Amino acid sequence: MSGINRWLLPDGVDELLPPEAWSVELLRRSLLDLFSSYGYELVTPPLIEYLESLLTGTGNDLELQTFKVTDQLTGRMMGLRGDITPQVARIDSHLLKSTGVSRLCYADNVLHTRPAHTMTSRSPLQLGCELFGEASAAADMEVISLMVETLALAGVNELHIDLAHVGIYRGLVETSGLSAKDQSTLFDSLSRKSLPELSALAEHVAEGGEIVRTIRDIAELSGGTGALEKIRESVAQLKLSNNAVVMSAIDDLDAIKVQLQQRFPHVEIGFDFCELRGYSYHTGVMFAAYTPSYGYALAKGGRYDDIGKEFGESRPATGFSADLKALARVSGLQVRQASEDVVAPYGVSADLLGAVKQLRATRRVIQRLSAQDNSNYGCRFELCKNGEDWKVIAL
Amino acid sequence: MSGINRWLLPDGVDELLPPEAWSVELLRRSLLDLFSSYGYELVTPPLIEYLESLLTGTGNDLELQTFKVTDQLTGRMMGLRGDITPQVARIDSHLLKSTGVSRLCYADNVLHTRPAHTMTSRSPLQLGCELFGEASAAADMEVISLMVETLALAGVNELHIDLAHVGIYRGLVETSGLSAKDQSTLFDSLSRKSLPELSALAEHVAEGGEIVRTIRDIAELSGGTGALEKIRESVAQLKLSNNAVVMSAIDDLDAIKVQLQQRFPHVEIGFDFCELRGYSYHTGVMFAAYTPSYGYALAKGGRYDDIGKEFGESRPATGFSADLKALARVSGLQVRQASEDVVAPYGVSADLLGAVKQLRATRRVIQRLSAQDNSNYGCRFELCKNGEDWKVIAL
Repeated sequence: MSGINRWLLPDGVDELLPPEAWSVELLRRSLLDLFSSYGYELVTPPLIEYLESLLTGTGNDLELQTFKVTDQLTGRMMGLRGDITPQVARIDSHLLKSTGVSRLCYADNVLHTRPAHTMTSRSPLQLGCELFGEASAAADMEVISLMVETLALAGVNELHIDLAHVGIYRGLVETSGLSAKDQSTLFDSLSRKSLPELSALAEHVAEGGEIVRTIRDIAELSGGTGALEKIRESVAQLKLSNNAVVMSAIDDLDAIKVQLQQRFPHVEIGFDFCELRGYSYHTGVMFAAYTPSYGYALAKGGRYDDIGKEFGESRPATGFSADLKALARVSGLQVRQASEDVVAPYGVSADLLGAVKQLRATRRVIQRLSAQDNSNYGCRFELCKNGEDWKVIAL
Repeated sequence: MSGINRWLLPDGVDELLPPEAWSVELLRRSLLDLFSSYGYELVTPPLIEYLESLLTGTGNDLELQTFKVTDQLTGRMMGLRGDITPQVARIDSHLLKSTGVSRLCYADNVLHTRPAHTMTSRSPLQLGCELFGEASAAADMEVISLMVETLALAGVNELHIDLAHVGIYRGLVETSGLSAKDQSTLFDSLSRKSLPELSALAEHVAEGGEIVRTIRDIAELSGGTGALEKIRESVAQLKLSNNAVVMSAIDDLDAIKVQLQQRFPHVEIGFDFCELRGYSYHTGVMFAAYTPSYGYALAKGGRYDDIGKEFGESRPATGFSADLKALARVSGLQVRQASEDVVAPYGVSADLLGAVKQLRATRRVIQRLSAQDNSNYGCRFELCKNGEDWKVIAL
């Protein structure tokens, strides 16, 4: 093959060069410090695990996203993690065995066999927070607040948050009497936000037409915050046997909306009732954060109770995650300030090396590697011998 | 399969839990700051690449260590990197295209199909520094100094550095007249430090017996710093046609030994003339750092000129790397101080949330998630309402 292809990276796989890599490092530090200030403890789950550890309880989407390799030591299949959240849930339920609230965070590589969207990365630097052991909306609210602060720290100022709740769709379908095939058509049409298909389905089904129509109406209402009251009315009219389940989901959304408006008046809030991503995985509120300059969710999360049950205890869980590299690219990158950098002459004398070492405690010092080397390496200061002493002078 | 195996990690694959994960994070930050103070710029090469990018110029050992997967987008083979050094060389020669000196550093995940030794990890957190564009021993010396400072910062006080140079073995074999088969036997016996086999080979070969004997003598001399002069004498007696090549390798080692003794008098220095690891890859000085409590090299490196030539320019290169997780485990871990942590009551009032936010700028504040929650989360302070104000009081 021709030489030029040797350094072509696969689609959706990227590398960070100077100065961007350092900017991402600084953002990573700020965000982990923020999580720590909320009491979230860092964990670093493994990049590779046996498939059944990695995929238990996570659903088909993640399985398709996961690269598989054979463990040469045992012949068993291993997977390269495509998501860190299930690993953190395992750590909470199996290893930490807390019965109270636990807060965990992480920032590390994940890999995807295919990009989630055309423009998204196959090698995100996933960072996030997970809160276990508390089922109330207060836990969701803490996680959403932390997500908003994460984005603020990354310099994302214009922020839109979409809220959703799997309990609405799940509650409606549960009592609809729809056949499995019709449920599948409904799910598919709703995911694609196809209102005409939903109308057609409502006409066609033997039973549950009214519920399909309500779901279509709800999908149509997605958008601004006023939608919530209209949905409450539509659902009330249905007189469902599990009315309380659906209403409680609506109440949760309402409570979160009100608190979000109070705490973060600059954040625009909307509802997306067609949101079915991770439907098999989420169990309550879901949320996603958007900014106008980026076409996909910058951060997202939600409630996913019981995911750890295969590994130990069944625990309430909620959390959010984001791709640090996407955040860094959307944000105004903080660049290392080079204005104090010092170039030092070549030499091995103890006094020179001592002066260089001392300076390096507070400044970058680049030492030349030969007497012929006269580059300043972009430095604005130089270390020079002044009588007996080494002094820093401006270049 | 039984539930218990679901959370068994593959051999040689580990995870970091609290508080260790945070200790490793703190060490990572300190070390990247150290590298930055020397002028090393951070790069983050991709975790996955097409195989020919990843393995060009790196030799068979790395190929065996590399997990392979199919790119579902193109059908081409990709590899999960087992080493970051060749990637950094590619970045230097192809992307940065500097003609002068460039300094790059990194800290990121690598994966190995098999552990390098029984007890070593298959998922190291590799961190290291690479210096390009300078062929002199001054560059090797800078890199070795940085390696010593890395280990000092990690709390490794008792340090032994083994020095080696591929030029000695390569120079001797080049003019030996040994057949390819005998060269292969020689390499194999020397790698296993089998002196009897080397003696037997010296008797058996048609030509080059004297050189094999000298190599055996040199292998026997490995150890303390006094060995260098004896090797110089043995090689001088051979009157080799490429005597200057071998002598220059010995001179390089001598110069580095002298400077190391001056700069780091506490470090014990030795020579290992049997060291042939990465023989196909290294081109000059090689070094490895040991401490008594850890059975393998804690950090290692050496010169590997020209590795980037397949990707752009052929450049002098030297560097070192270490497994951050191994460093953290050997070192006395720095643990987050929890003595200032504050627990705050549940509530959503603006004044409480404002007080919590302000405190979080400097301290960890864990807010309770319900009125029933009375855990202190290990905090020694509590945020309490005192008249109109929120005050921090000791618990």
